[in-house]
Amino acid sequence: MLVNRRTLRIEWGQCDPAGIVFYPQYLIILDTSTGWLFERTGLTPSAMRQKYGIVGLPVVEIGVEFKAPCRFDDEVTVESEVGEWGRSSFTVRHRIVKNDGLALSGFEKRVWARPHPDRPGAIQGQPIPAEIVASLSDPTGTTRVNS
Amino acid sequence: MLVNRRTLRIEWGQCDPAGIVFYPQYLIILDTSTGWLFERTGLTPSAMRQKYGIVGLPVVEIGVEFKAPCRFDDEVTVESEVGEWGRSSFTVRHRIVKNDGLALSGFEKRVWARPHPDRPGAIQGQPIPAEIVASLSDPTGTTRVNS
Amino acid sequence: MLVNRRTLRIEWGQCDPAGIVFYPQYLIILDTSTGWLFERTGLTPSAMRQKYGIVGLPVVEIGVEFKAPCRFDDEVTVESEVGEWGRSSFTVRHRIVKNDGLALSGFEKRVWARPHPDRPGAIQGQPIPAEIVASLSDPTGTTRVNS
Amino acid sequence: MLVNRRTLRIEWGQCDPAGIVFYPQYLIILDTSTGWLFERTGLTPSAMRQKYGIVGLPVVEIGVEFKAPCRFDDEVTVESEVGEWGRSSFTVRHRIVKNDGLALSGFEKRVWARPHPDRPGAIQGQPIPAEIVASLSDPTGTTRVNS
Repeated sequence: MLVNRRTLRIEWGQCDPAGIVFYPQYLIILDTSTGWLFERTGLTPSAMRQKYGIVGLPVVEIGVEFKAPCRFDDEVTVESEVGEWGRSSFTVRHRIVKNDGLALSGFEKRVWARPHPDRPGAIQGQPIPAEIVASLSDPTGTTRVNS
Repeated sequence: MLVNRRTLRIEWGQCDPAGIVFYPQYLIILDTSTGWLFERTGLTPSAMRQKYGIVGLPVVEIGVEFKAPCRFDDEVTVESEVGEWGRSSFTVRHRIVKNDGLALSGFEKRVWARPHPDRPGAIQGQPIPAEIVASLSDPTGTTRVNS
Repeated sequence: MLVNRRTLRIEWGQCDPAGIVFYPQYLIILDTSTGWLFERTGLTPSAMRQKYGIVGLPVVEIGVEFKAPCRFDDEVTVESEVGEWGRSSFTVRHRIVKNDGLALSGFEKRVWARPHPDRPGAIQGQPIPAEIVASLSDPTGTTRVNS
Repeated sequence: MLVNRRTLRIEWGQCDPAGIVFYPQYLIILDTSTGWLFERTGLTPSAMRQKYGIVGLPVVEIGVEFKAPCRFDDEVTVESEVGEWGRSSFTVRHRIVKNDGLALSGFEKRVWARPHPDRPGAIQGQPIPAEIVASLSDPTGTTRVNS
């Protein structure tokens, strides 16, 4: 699979009175990291929504283990890749690494979803396009999708 | 004017490594407090949007003075009232009080706005309905708006 | 076990451009809900920290399933209870219910932790006090802990 | 003055159901941008705290005008510089620019503060070190402070 890596600095406002990252802040980082992974297809989020008519990639399940605390001013690397492809759902695996140690390991299970044709406000899972699967399954990151 | 009061407990996740509220968290509190003030009209946010076709109450300006820090587990009272009515804009004044002392004083200037009829994605200020002005100008809180 | 229930209104700032709760916002709700559950012991968070010398209840693992979306202006009930007691760790189970339907089901695994005596900045799990276990295991909520 | 520029992408979780940035999210961006401006001195936040014994740069006042909405996937530039130096306080001016247009203009007034020597939990303004003023007043960004 293609692994996307982002290097981030932990910011003051992400940390709690114990001086460590307030755990829901990590989920904001994971959500954003999935966005940047999918951008490796060559499509911006807006372009992907327009091309395929999807509403986004709603999350149906998460699981995260917090291995070591991160603090203000720490530099961390977030590594994200698809762990498993289903027909209309998929799992993104994330690791946050600090000083070569694992700080966090987790997954998000998401759905490739468009608005439901009959029920306003509802969504409907859709088959994930083959070229998206191909692009994010290529570890070299050179298989791109045309917008 | 009608003053709406809310009593809140400062939560762990709103505080920073110095043990005090991270200042953008106060703005989330103010935003929500404006919502609860407008609900004193008798209209829920959804009902207000539906009745008047507005997109919400977008903020065009804020000013806040932070007088004393609040900490995890503090009980605070937020007092909110309209400070000034314009034709399509208005100012909400907020105070956050802790142990009878002023912790914060500030305002939000907002617009009564609907989607622009011609420019997709843009909005357009609209005259604030007289019954909304009347309701929130009544200090007794008994002048309600029918949904 | 003692089940703590909180009724909340979903706020504008918790929702995303799809009009539904941005999922990390649910984790903020769960974190706060654990705080309120522990307050059913009769100890405020500050009193609990002072009485036992703990730094808090750091989270080591979470797992959440998102069953149905919540939207701005929805009224939801959060139900929280300890699911399992370990020696120094425990699991809190949360459910978010909307209109009698399950919107979210999940858990947080947390540690009863004090500052490590020898390693600055590190923490150390401690045996959970028996009276805390007794209080939160009593479904009637009448077993309180003296501060 | 030294102007620090950061280019950011507006993320999904920063936007509200109207599809635009939820305004308190801008304040998180401004807070972080002040941090990055001060890092242009050559000191990381941790190094600055250690060298001068300060608790941080607490905010005492803000004022922001929102000129044009930003949306998910927008690329914006944040420009930050000190607007005015007092003895122990200073003002940081921020602009957020999108497609050459001004989206936001505002300021934060902050204090150079250390823990109060006599009153636990309180802080005390301190004279801003001359080398910090010199570094951030140099538009070329080449006047650095030794850690």
